[in-house]
This record gives sequence, structure tokens and C-alpha cells, in this order.
Amino acid sequence: MEIIGFSAAILTTAAFLPQVYKTWKTKDVSGLSLPMLIMFFVGVFLWLVYGFYKESPSMIFANAITVVSAFFLMYFKIIYSKK
Amino acid sequence: MEIIGFSAAILTTAAFLPQVYKTWKTKDVSGLSLPMLIMFFVGVFLWLVYGFYKESPSMIFANAITVVSAFFLMYFKIIYSKK
Repeated sequence: MEIIGFSAAILTTAAFLPQVYKTWKTKDVSGLSLPMLIMFFVGVFLWLVYGFYKESPSMIFANAITVVSAFFLMYFKIIYSKK
Repeated sequence: MEIIGFSAAILTTAAFLPQVYKTWKTKDVSGLSLPMLIMFFVGVFLWLVYGFYKESPSMIFANAITVVSAFFLMYFKIIYSKK
């Protein structure tokens, strides 16, 4: 059954990465909301903690990648908004 | 420890809902990619199945809401793209 978790992890992570790439390339952060990014970052961090508690390899894998991606989006929002 | 899962569920779900609302109000789906939405929808559906397997109330709660939201985004993308 862990294969279902990993399939889920790959699909939802892969659907999120193009957003990070697009923001990095275009530097267009006008459509991104900082409070929402912060909520999302904290939420994904808590999912990561919960994944360790549930001893779920697929949750740890997915949320470790997503927490880093969410951090970059927050970072882009802050640095590109200043211009 | 389930409180951590529920905190995570509320934060990540709340960060996603404004996107659904914005798309519904503006009917602007130009920034949304249908293949990505389909991947995301299938991925979240698999997380829901995995949540049942892990007997995790917070995963079931979060993914049940998100799978419905993702379905609406796919639906909006299809109907508003035709115009």
C-alpha cells in the first residue's frame, strides 16, 4: 500500500514544481500572496512532522520536497516584491 | 499528535481555497494548466485513499476537501477555456 502513497507524492509534488520554476524564471510574484505562502509553508512543515509521527515514508518524501519548494516561493515573493 | 495533522490540514487547505474562489469569480483560467490539474486531482485522490489506509483522520479530512476543490478547478478550466 505504500506504493499508493508514493504515487500520490509524485503526482502532487510534480504538479507543484512548475509553479516554482515559473516564478523563478519570470520573477512574476504579483499573483502570489505572502500570507498564503506562509500558511502553506507552515502547514507543509506540520505535515512533515506528522509524517514522521505516522512513520510514513511517502509523506516524509513528499513533504520534504514541498517544504523546500514552498520556502523558495516565499523567498522569491519577498525579494522580487521589493523591485 | 493528531492535533498536528489537523493544524497542517487547516493551513494547507485554507491556503488552497482562495485560488478556487478567485478562479470561480474571475473565470480567468489562463494561468492554469489542465494536465497539471489532472495530475494534482489524481494525486490528492490517492492521498485520500492512503489516508484511509493509514487510518489518519486529519489526512482524510484535508484530502476530502482538497479533492473536491481540485475537481472544481478542473471543471472551471474545461468550461471557461471554451469561451
